[in-house]
Amino acid sequence: MPRIAYVNGRYLSHRDAFVHVEDRGYQFADGVYEVCEVARGYIVDMGPHLDRLDRSLKELSIAWPVSRKALTIIMREVVRHNRVIDGLVYLQVTRGVASRDFVFPANAKPSLVVLARKADPGFQARRATTGIKVITVPENRWERVDIKSVGLLPNVLAKQKAKEAGCQEAWFVDTDGMVKEGGSSNAWIVTRDGVLVTRPADHGILRGITRTTLFKVASRLGLKIEERPFAVEEAMRAREAFISSATTIVLPVVEIDGRPIANGEPGSVALSLREAFFDVAEKSRA
Amino acid sequence: MPRIAYVNGRYLSHRDAFVHVEDRGYQFADGVYEVCEVARGYIVDMGPHLDRLDRSLKELSIAWPVSRKALTIIMREVVRHNRVIDGLVYLQVTRGVASRDFVFPANAKPSLVVLARKADPGFQARRATTGIKVITVPENRWERVDIKSVGLLPNVLAKQKAKEAGCQEAWFVDTDGMVKEGGSSNAWIVTRDGVLVTRPADHGILRGITRTTLFKVASRLGLKIEERPFAVEEAMRAREAFISSATTIVLPVVEIDGRPIANGEPGSVALSLREAFFDVAEKSRA
Repeated sequence: MPRIAYVNGRYLSHRDAFVHVEDRGYQFADGVYEVCEVARGYIVDMGPHLDRLDRSLKELSIAWPVSRKALTIIMREVVRHNRVIDGLVYLQVTRGVASRDFVFPANAKPSLVVLARKADPGFQARRATTGIKVITVPENRWERVDIKSVGLLPNVLAKQKAKEAGCQEAWFVDTDGMVKEGGSSNAWIVTRDGVLVTRPADHGILRGITRTTLFKVASRLGLKIEERPFAVEEAMRAREAFISSATTIVLPVVEIDGRPIANGEPGSVALSLREAFFDVAEKSRA
Repeated sequence: MPRIAYVNGRYLSHRDAFVHVEDRGYQFADGVYEVCEVARGYIVDMGPHLDRLDRSLKELSIAWPVSRKALTIIMREVVRHNRVIDGLVYLQVTRGVASRDFVFPANAKPSLVVLARKADPGFQARRATTGIKVITVPENRWERVDIKSVGLLPNVLAKQKAKEAGCQEAWFVDTDGMVKEGGSSNAWIVTRDGVLVTRPADHGILRGITRTTLFKVASRLGLKIEERPFAVEEAMRAREAFISSATTIVLPVVEIDGRPIANGEPGSVALSLREAFFDVAEKSRA
């Protein structure tokens, strides 16, 4: 990770970027986060990410640690300090530091951490040309995964399980056999008729920012989208499957639970969406 | 909170007790914890708490940060440094510091934080004489609440909701109407026949250490225990209801969702269990 981090008002060497042991993020997972892609010197979809941050904070009754405008300045500063042209910027807000007690503290000031790091811009592009493999795991998370909280242990365990199976993502599947979303991405399929299908962003999944932008991308490409749940079985018989997230944008899925999707090669629809994404997304000069 | 904290090998001023922003406890809730009561200069049930810590760590494939023996020494040191005669000692182990990625890092060293603080020994005793009020909330947590992870946001929200309703605990209730456990305690009732009832410690709840010790206390008092789920309705018609936890030991419940239990006064069975607890529990001189 990079050299400079922002922590509660100060720009610090990453090595010296610390928070108090009684920060409620550490003791209770009482906080939320966002990750924005940085591409070609632009922060991608910063506006929608901050809109979602606002919603997460409101759901948990956590105040903004700084104004929205100040946060955008801090994000840009951290990106610039770390000379990130391609990579990501990560922000985390928690309820702050207080003597450990479950109920909300009376006077805690929310904590803010902003990190950024470089990534090889070719890395995800190369993954897109080979595609990724997915396992399915039973949904075992709490009901409010629509809140982007740092309570990510189930996601950690699911993605670790995927890795141990030689895969790159895990799809949570509900008791009704329907796919919810990935450990850190939304899940999509393309039907034999070329229609994009993805689960509605109700309380069962996180409303992905990249997912939302892809609706616009699809529209520009003249592709039809159906927002409805799909079963693992349907995904296995689909023409294509793919995932979307801020850091991967779009990655074709070529295998689910060891079964190849279509011919086992990345699908053209996923690759077209990926190709057109950057032109459609909101770009803020870092 | 106290003056001295142990953080990753060092005894520090509590004010200076910090962990890195990329500690996985902070970014992923990828860690576990234990709380032991300190009473009359003894750490209560330290052995069983460390047994449960061992289980939590194994379930998450996190290594012990130091040996069990070293941890007991650190806990005693922190208690002593803070001159805690009555209060609690808190320990937290996380998977350690690593550049943010969901999958387990290759070389992270687990983090260890140990805190202690004093408490007025009369505080819980006074609460026991008045009893506490409970609300019920729908179970919305993940399925592995048997692991004592720091992913406690649902518990925070439930206990905050209880507080806002003028209550002191929230009981999670499953879709079948059966009580799971409290936000930070186990739930019990006493039937009209004087039988103690508490939910079996399967994967639906945490296996409370105080809960387990109370089995021995009940046996000494000649009380019968049935391990079975009970419904909210049954609790409302019960002779008594109470909660158990390491820091509260036993607190009578006098009201559930605004309805008084029996005559609305603390029950004698709960108070007897509370009274006899300390003699039966394992005590380690701090």
